[in-house]
Amino acid sequence: MPSLCGGRGKCAKCRCQPRGPVTDPTPLESELLSQEELSGGVRLACQARPLGEVEVAIEEEVLEKGGYTEVAVVPEPLLRKAYVELPAPAPHDDLSDVERVRKSLGIPLWAAPPVLRALPSALREAGFRATMTLWDHGTPGEELLAVEAGDTHTRAYGVAFDIGTTSVVGYMIDLFTGREVARSSRLNGQQPWGADVISRATYALEAPHGVEELQAAVIATLNRILADCCAGVDPREVYYATVVGNSLMHHVMLGITPRTIAVSPYVAVTRDPLHVRAADLGIALPNAWVYFLPLIGAYVGADTLAVIMATALDQSEDICLAVDIGTNGEMALGSRERILACSAPAGPAFEGAEIRYGMRAAAGAIDRVRVDEDVRIWTIGDVAPRGICGSGLIDALDQMLRKGIVDPGGRLLARPRLEGRIPGKVLERVAGQGHTWEFVLSWEPRVTVTQEDVRQLQLAKGTILCGVRLLMEELGIGASQISAVSLAGAFGNYVDKRSALGIGMLPPTIPMDRIQGVGNAAGQGARMTLLSRSVRRRAETLARTIDYFELSKHPNFEDRFVESLPFPHPDATGK
Amino acid sequence: MPSLCGGRGKCAKCRCQPRGPVTDPTPLESELLSQEELSGGVRLACQARPLGEVEVAIEEEVLEKGGYTEVAVVPEPLLRKAYVELPAPAPHDDLSDVERVRKSLGIPLWAAPPVLRALPSALREAGFRATMTLWDHGTPGEELLAVEAGDTHTRAYGVAFDIGTTSVVGYMIDLFTGREVARSSRLNGQQPWGADVISRATYALEAPHGVEELQAAVIATLNRILADCCAGVDPREVYYATVVGNSLMHHVMLGITPRTIAVSPYVAVTRDPLHVRAADLGIALPNAWVYFLPLIGAYVGADTLAVIMATALDQSEDICLAVDIGTNGEMALGSRERILACSAPAGPAFEGAEIRYGMRAAAGAIDRVRVDEDVRIWTIGDVAPRGICGSGLIDALDQMLRKGIVDPGGRLLARPRLEGRIPGKVLERVAGQGHTWEFVLSWEPRVTVTQEDVRQLQLAKGTILCGVRLLMEELGIGASQISAVSLAGAFGNYVDKRSALGIGMLPPTIPMDRIQGVGNAAGQGARMTLLSRSVRRRAETLARTIDYFELSKHPNFEDRFVESLPFPHPDATGK
Repeated sequence: MPSLCGGRGKCAKCRCQPRGPVTDPTPLESELLSQEELSGGVRLACQARPLGEVEVAIEEEVLEKGGYTEVAVVPEPLLRKAYVELPAPAPHDDLSDVERVRKSLGIPLWAAPPVLRALPSALREAGFRATMTLWDHGTPGEELLAVEAGDTHTRAYGVAFDIGTTSVVGYMIDLFTGREVARSSRLNGQQPWGADVISRATYALEAPHGVEELQAAVIATLNRILADCCAGVDPREVYYATVVGNSLMHHVMLGITPRTIAVSPYVAVTRDPLHVRAADLGIALPNAWVYFLPLIGAYVGADTLAVIMATALDQSEDICLAVDIGTNGEMALGSRERILACSAPAGPAFEGAEIRYGMRAAAGAIDRVRVDEDVRIWTIGDVAPRGICGSGLIDALDQMLRKGIVDPGGRLLARPRLEGRIPGKVLERVAGQGHTWEFVLSWEPRVTVTQEDVRQLQLAKGTILCGVRLLMEELGIGASQISAVSLAGAFGNYVDKRSALGIGMLPPTIPMDRIQGVGNAAGQGARMTLLSRSVRRRAETLARTIDYFELSKHPNFEDRFVESLPFPHPDATGK
Repeated sequence: MPSLCGGRGKCAKCRCQPRGPVTDPTPLESELLSQEELSGGVRLACQARPLGEVEVAIEEEVLEKGGYTEVAVVPEPLLRKAYVELPAPAPHDDLSDVERVRKSLGIPLWAAPPVLRALPSALREAGFRATMTLWDHGTPGEELLAVEAGDTHTRAYGVAFDIGTTSVVGYMIDLFTGREVARSSRLNGQQPWGADVISRATYALEAPHGVEELQAAVIATLNRILADCCAGVDPREVYYATVVGNSLMHHVMLGITPRTIAVSPYVAVTRDPLHVRAADLGIALPNAWVYFLPLIGAYVGADTLAVIMATALDQSEDICLAVDIGTNGEMALGSRERILACSAPAGPAFEGAEIRYGMRAAAGAIDRVRVDEDVRIWTIGDVAPRGICGSGLIDALDQMLRKGIVDPGGRLLARPRLEGRIPGKVLERVAGQGHTWEFVLSWEPRVTVTQEDVRQLQLAKGTILCGVRLLMEELGIGASQISAVSLAGAFGNYVDKRSALGIGMLPPTIPMDRIQGVGNAAGQGARMTLLSRSVRRRAETLARTIDYFELSKHPNFEDRFVESLPFPHPDATGK
């Protein structure tokens, strides 16, 4: 059940309609829910307590539109499979099973207990014809990762995981061909502990077993994704997985406290690339090793590294900018000469969180808005509106700025001040009284953009812009020198580039045709690393050479942040 | 609760006196228990079922007399500890914890998740003064095995485990000085599944989770031993453990089926030396790796290898014989030139099992017997006799042979045939009627040696002698060329050498002064390996060069076995 406030009865995001006996609404619910909702049986999951068997429908729909750029990687698998036909043991040929395999392959090899347990029956099941999966990971001798009866040498799978604060994506890949065989995206199971990394870190630090709970939640999510992806794949034939995520996700997934990341002076426990057995983390892949891409810094995670690799910043002659807008904004600027990265805690507003009618990009979300004589809205799935998602919000805000409904300072003007300056039908939509004006996008069901929503978006876009400006400053370049801007993440695909420039998320002097959405670049980086050992080496080298800073610690942060808050004047961006 | 028959109500070894409501005696119990026992409340644990709260006293006393030969090993620890004082992180010194340690030590190192989880608090607990335990085990970079707040660099412990079929011994050793700091011996928790390896293997093969149950039982025993030994030692400061045991114990402890060992053509799944994390096996040592010494063959285990090392057969100029008599008899013959080993399934008779009044070497066990005008007995602890242990049995048998009560063919003569040939008081002790004669050692409480007991001992000694003879045959030497005989195991310490020769366990031409008890040589080999990396290398080289055979598979086995069964004529051994 999603939650922004961590179950404290403040965010009202955990609305649900329990079927069955529950406790009466609490005062908090009476305050946060409308009379209509209350009489319709809508409740807050954090407040209502079951009094018997209760059924609650939980929405867990995460859409992902395609549109990401396929980066061609020549598969250079980390492992190999070998089919062998061995002589059966006999009174005068009494080598152990392991020695028999070793002799046949002619290489030093070793196996850990789980494989030793599987070996005798796998060999005997098909008359000592079996397939060995071998991995050379720097130990003396290759590791025998798995053994399968019969000839399975053409089948080897891997999974690339992109662990976002909000959603987790898994890509099941054929390690020998690079072909994607399945994909699944699920809400990160850590939702009940808050929408952003700060809430999660707070829980991890304060609850007695906070880290373990958060770890179990994200591992459970991974296992659900694996169940989705393993319809046509035997999990025992998945030998390798890669993981990218921000530093908090990285630490928590490994069961490491994020305290050192969350508390000054903000250092990671480890930034090293790590190989861990999937089984040791509770991941339902009995034979797989999991590779955690290295972190760049305490606040600049493996996800940023993955974005840099997927957008090939490190191989570019010209200076490029990559911005990955998720719950955290990660961004990198540079070229093959030098890359600078930073993390901008933009908050989840662009994902529709902390927004009155905000919702994820799911069916019924308003994702496009135009304001002319009246307001026109488009929804995902062309159904009745249920709320508004990130791209819809930016569209709406851009249109409100263009019409002067919101001024460059971020104030939603009172209706009286707009009379005569906007069409009548649009004017009617400026609703409210006194200090609390809102702009109605849909009357029934009601979806509005409130003054508070505008402020949230303003802080978010200001943070992103501040980050980009500080990166430019550190690299000593102007916006015109940026030859390409990659907008990564689902957001980068959905958002209207004109609207993004319109609200001033990026420096206004960047030409629109240099901006492109590149899809889930973090996931793409994880996929590339899964497929190729030279990409993995590239990641490890890169992680040690990228310069980075934590936005809020930069000496010029406050100045630049304040300068980045105002929205552009509508005239400045043309129309 | 010990059992020979695996709870099938046949061996009557699980006698107990339950206090509380239990079911009535079964027909099996009426048959196996005396009227006296039944009226005294004695029951068989495998038959009686509790009908409420029932208390049962379980004897778990394993005595170990000293007397083993200390083999001087110069400690060459596998790991090292380093105390470091690190600069605390600061805004401009934001290395991760791992990098901070690495930089301070100036070496490449890595850590697995459990240590990464412990690292941040350990460093901060004592202001970044902490002690690192490092182990170079062939991976790229040393492994950071453990981290402790403050200066603990002088403390590093290891445990050597000798996993016997009957009992398990653990030695807690200071890895830097070689000093023994604690020792504990416990019955192997696999007792309920039978006394010998064959019963255990049968259970492992037939029960659905047999291997897992047996594994859990022996691991639980190890953990009890660790609890005994960790009174003055923090288990987190135990970094290394070594394990020796026969091949079945080895496989089962690793959770590997012993099927391939137990079923023709008898091969091991692996004979390799293995390093496994203690935690992965459920052993209560959070920071330790466990080293399994290599096996010599499917039936000749790491215990034999350990005995060879402890008795330094592989370094001897002259040909020596080492015999380890446990539930299985392991033996090796040779010198630095060549060593031959075999395993002799002597059965548990020498340990007092499968013997009517047999018991382990615990308080009340008759351990010495002399027959002159009457019988004189000695018991362990000088208390009233409760039964008879292995050394007592061999003494008794030797005396019975000398007096002609048992003939060289192994027949316990009927009383009428002995009349006039032995003193009257001794004659009275030949009790019974018809075919079932027994020799009474103690009238009250009654302890006897039965005809069946004599046959069990005869089979056991015949097996050992047959093994020694086949080893000599294979090596092409006579008994006179054996310069020293080491009798290993608790048995080797207890047994009267004269009695051992008297019953013909060893070739009669071996002079008594060449025979010596060397104590728990298998455990000693495990200790030596714990302390020194060069001893470990020696073990690994040795395991690959020792020739071995499975006794019962030897082409001359049957002939030699039959020839080895008769007891020596009393005159032949002098008196």
